[in-house]
Amino acid sequence: MPHNKRPAPKGSPHSRRNRPRKEKSPDGTYWLYGIHAVRAAFSNKNRRILRILANASGAEALDAATMATRPADRPTLEPLDSRALPPGIQEQAVHQGLLAEVRPLPAPDPALLDLPDTRRVIALDQVTDPQNMGAILRTCAVFGVQAVIVPRHNTPGETGALAKAASGALEIVPILRVANLSRSLDGLKKSGFFVIGLAGEAEQAIGDYAPLNRCVLVAGAEGRGLRRLVREHCDATVALPVAPKAKTAGIDSLNVATAVAVALHDLVRCQGERYQQSIDDRPNP
Amino acid sequence: MPHNKRPAPKGSPHSRRNRPRKEKSPDGTYWLYGIHAVRAAFSNKNRRILRILANASGAEALDAATMATRPADRPTLEPLDSRALPPGIQEQAVHQGLLAEVRPLPAPDPALLDLPDTRRVIALDQVTDPQNMGAILRTCAVFGVQAVIVPRHNTPGETGALAKAASGALEIVPILRVANLSRSLDGLKKSGFFVIGLAGEAEQAIGDYAPLNRCVLVAGAEGRGLRRLVREHCDATVALPVAPKAKTAGIDSLNVATAVAVALHDLVRCQGERYQQSIDDRPNP
Repeated sequence: MPHNKRPAPKGSPHSRRNRPRKEKSPDGTYWLYGIHAVRAAFSNKNRRILRILANASGAEALDAATMATRPADRPTLEPLDSRALPPGIQEQAVHQGLLAEVRPLPAPDPALLDLPDTRRVIALDQVTDPQNMGAILRTCAVFGVQAVIVPRHNTPGETGALAKAASGALEIVPILRVANLSRSLDGLKKSGFFVIGLAGEAEQAIGDYAPLNRCVLVAGAEGRGLRRLVREHCDATVALPVAPKAKTAGIDSLNVATAVAVALHDLVRCQGERYQQSIDDRPNP
Repeated sequence: MPHNKRPAPKGSPHSRRNRPRKEKSPDGTYWLYGIHAVRAAFSNKNRRILRILANASGAEALDAATMATRPADRPTLEPLDSRALPPGIQEQAVHQGLLAEVRPLPAPDPALLDLPDTRRVIALDQVTDPQNMGAILRTCAVFGVQAVIVPRHNTPGETGALAKAASGALEIVPILRVANLSRSLDGLKKSGFFVIGLAGEAEQAIGDYAPLNRCVLVAGAEGRGLRRLVREHCDATVALPVAPKAKTAGIDSLNVATAVAVALHDLVRCQGERYQQSIDDRPNP
């Protein structure tokens, strides 16, 4: 600890004792926790599961049928001592008695964006909160989004907290981490995607562009919104309505994860009857 | 501590040292925290503010214009010592250097439901998580919901954590706490409200009932959903679509706060062109 920095007071979340150790181990493995997150990992053939820690109720949630989906690489199942959680898992974490040590997912193939069935994509411009990003992944799974694109920097990595908030969606929604988001949007435009940015001050709504075919929805960080350059690479910007009384009280926007959900619901509607088809026919990521 | 209960391990969130003292003091006052929550309190004439604690950046967010809105009952402004937070505020709380000790809001007059301009109401059936309830309040403010109805029991009370998640919306969205939710829904039906319950297994969508006039949307607890009796008191139940691939991975629903937002967005559309009018003309709660 540098000399010019006062040690944090005892019991503070920043004190040495309470500071969680890094979630990722040197070999890149980390711990998923929570029933949905762990069960979904089992259903993902691309996920390598090394160890399971479970108490009685956690083991019950992981039934024999689930374990049997891994005949070749069945992970070890060990009893969970809730007083000795693995590194990186905070004591407040709602682990539901079930944790899994896993390897990070392989990066998805960017070629999935060129597949003709890929027509609903979300881009996040520096959404830095793992809770929000996890919530967005869950929403993307429910609405059949085929890929999420994020900048490699200033975006949460794959962690247990993100996976918990995603409630299993981390296993089925491919996340493409790109060096330059604006350039990626340009590439998508060339592939026939219409790029729509969510921006509080816009005057159009998504419905104004219906019917829509291939589409990317771009959402920015809460508070700051889209960066200027990213906005300039959108084909259109749209806003969601805010009641005047809310504006007066200083509430001028939805939470970013909520805004993405509402916009996605609009988008699904504007993409019309091809909703089911686009999901059922899409290739595995 | 009873003898048959083992003391929680040191450093655990349940150990005596880390357990937060009750958020509410014996005289019912409690602490709001965060810039949006505190600023919104100033804009609410029904809110009694007793004391402000602020550090430099917190004081900056509370400009003279805001303080001047309270010439009669200007609260005392005291410096914030972040190592001695008021009772009930956890050290992890994102207080942004601004806290306000306040009295709870007076219960809103149930007669507001009978006002002809009240036509968009949310009912929550045992949503117990303050984060979700706060997020729903924020969404309700943005979509111009005129009242939220909750059962008196098994619903989070008015606390700093709830207000922080609501981001100011606690000050403008009236919360009616009722003894019996099913009976309240019956009363609303007699006043001409159409009562729609959100239920994963339903086969209709909100749009199937358009155009809608006065409407109550009822959402249940995540996981359990609506209780049977509450569901039986709905005029209709509707579901939001879930992609087949998400269902296969065990992701069969949106987070409850997200689901309410998506449903509200549909409702606003189905209530048509009277959106603006209903908000602008509505009486103060």
